[in-house]
Amino acid sequence: MNFQQKLDKIVKKNNSFVCVGLDSDVEKLSNKFRKIKDGQFKFNKWIIDQTHDLVCGYKPNSAFYEGQGVEGIKQLKLTCDYIRLHHPEICLILDYKRGDIGNTNNGYVRFAFDFLKSDAVTVIPYMGIEALQAFLNKKDKGIIIGCHSSNPGAKEFQELMVSDDEPLYLKIAQDIALKWNKKGNCMVFVGATYPEEMRKVRKIIGEMTILSPGINVQGGQVENIVKGGLNSKKSGMIINSSRGIIFAKNPREETRKLRDEINKYR
Amino acid sequence: MNFQQKLDKIVKKNNSFVCVGLDSDVEKLSNKFRKIKDGQFKFNKWIIDQTHDLVCGYKPNSAFYEGQGVEGIKQLKLTCDYIRLHHPEICLILDYKRGDIGNTNNGYVRFAFDFLKSDAVTVIPYMGIEALQAFLNKKDKGIIIGCHSSNPGAKEFQELMVSDDEPLYLKIAQDIALKWNKKGNCMVFVGATYPEEMRKVRKIIGEMTILSPGINVQGGQVENIVKGGLNSKKSGMIINSSRGIIFAKNPREETRKLRDEINKYR
Repeated sequence: MNFQQKLDKIVKKNNSFVCVGLDSDVEKLSNKFRKIKDGQFKFNKWIIDQTHDLVCGYKPNSAFYEGQGVEGIKQLKLTCDYIRLHHPEICLILDYKRGDIGNTNNGYVRFAFDFLKSDAVTVIPYMGIEALQAFLNKKDKGIIIGCHSSNPGAKEFQELMVSDDEPLYLKIAQDIALKWNKKGNCMVFVGATYPEEMRKVRKIIGEMTILSPGINVQGGQVENIVKGGLNSKKSGMIINSSRGIIFAKNPREETRKLRDEINKYR
Repeated sequence: MNFQQKLDKIVKKNNSFVCVGLDSDVEKLSNKFRKIKDGQFKFNKWIIDQTHDLVCGYKPNSAFYEGQGVEGIKQLKLTCDYIRLHHPEICLILDYKRGDIGNTNNGYVRFAFDFLKSDAVTVIPYMGIEALQAFLNKKDKGIIIGCHSSNPGAKEFQELMVSDDEPLYLKIAQDIALKWNKKGNCMVFVGATYPEEMRKVRKIIGEMTILSPGINVQGGQVENIVKGGLNSKKSGMIINSSRGIIFAKNPREETRKLRDEINKYR
């Protein structure tokens, strides 16, 4: 079973496009978790235990674990092991945003897929997609390539026009769809804060899956993102919320709310 | 003392622009190091012990350590601690190539500067340089931003024209020099395989330091890179060789050879 098949299965089973971002910044944890051994993992376990029937994926962002050095990497490993053991049907996406050149990427490939046993990983295309070959070779994994990020400064380079009618992010989306997706394992990410850009990316990439981080339940954003991002099969999306869920008063309730809001527009 | 001052001091003391890339791929280590405890660190120590009077910096690339999971991060930490303790005057550059958005980068900043105590770090500008603020805030550190990488596929996006006469990598170089270098801690990296592009970047960025990876002693490359990359003070370069030195028969001899070849053109 490849990543897309695994994703389709869990989306159907849990009736959910929601991915929960395990951006478990230790400084934001309550004392209950902050002051105990393996607190970062135990916080994640608490989140997973109350949301696993409402999601299609979990997405830990490596930065929040690396920040704690060796100890943080152990917390990330415990988290990934827990998901693989107790919820093997749920997609484990490592938010990694790596992109070095050539064989150097082998180390990152090993960390993501051999050490943590992730199902998918995010990468950055700045070095050229040729540089990502070590990732692209993993045919059963999902390789989610940065296209348009969710931050305000995303425009600075990603929206520069590289031909008369094409900004850089669309050129990248097109190159991925036409030239680089030879094993059918490529996906893209497009920030949920850019619904118009989402629509344009969808037009270009066909049925390919889009990971969309930065979603906010307020302000009609969900409707725009879902309508702009779904493919012709009314599928092909992973919609990620991190802090909005994990640091909410009631993470289960927030997850359900986001799932239901998304499903209104499918 | 900020990073640039530290760099200038050691360049003068060791009369060297050479940085040794500690890309210590465990699969390439000889049995002597491969089969012992802390072999990756001990290999690095062996390299450092024989080259420290010939270099201005060491640059471990995170990927080669992450590939071994928690154990690899320990080897990287041992290596950085050894450099800081025994050769505190030498620049420790973490080749990290990170670039996430906003506060997420705080975790990477902590890993690079609090955990490993690096002097400088490489980052990727795809998300926009606004996204790198957590790095840029570190005024005494060197923030080395990707401009033109050394791989064959670098051209794919980096050389796309974003205006009539400006490719993306030069737009990035210019934005860094004019808009983002408010604390004077920005630098750029330009692959040594692109001497013409090096010359163009130098024209745009003024006196700023350039890290140049991918150097090869053969083929006249050193002359082109040094002549194109030096600033008006005949300085402002860090020239990195990794495998060409660390996996050579005689790493000390290779380091000396590269140093002397570079110094011919200063």
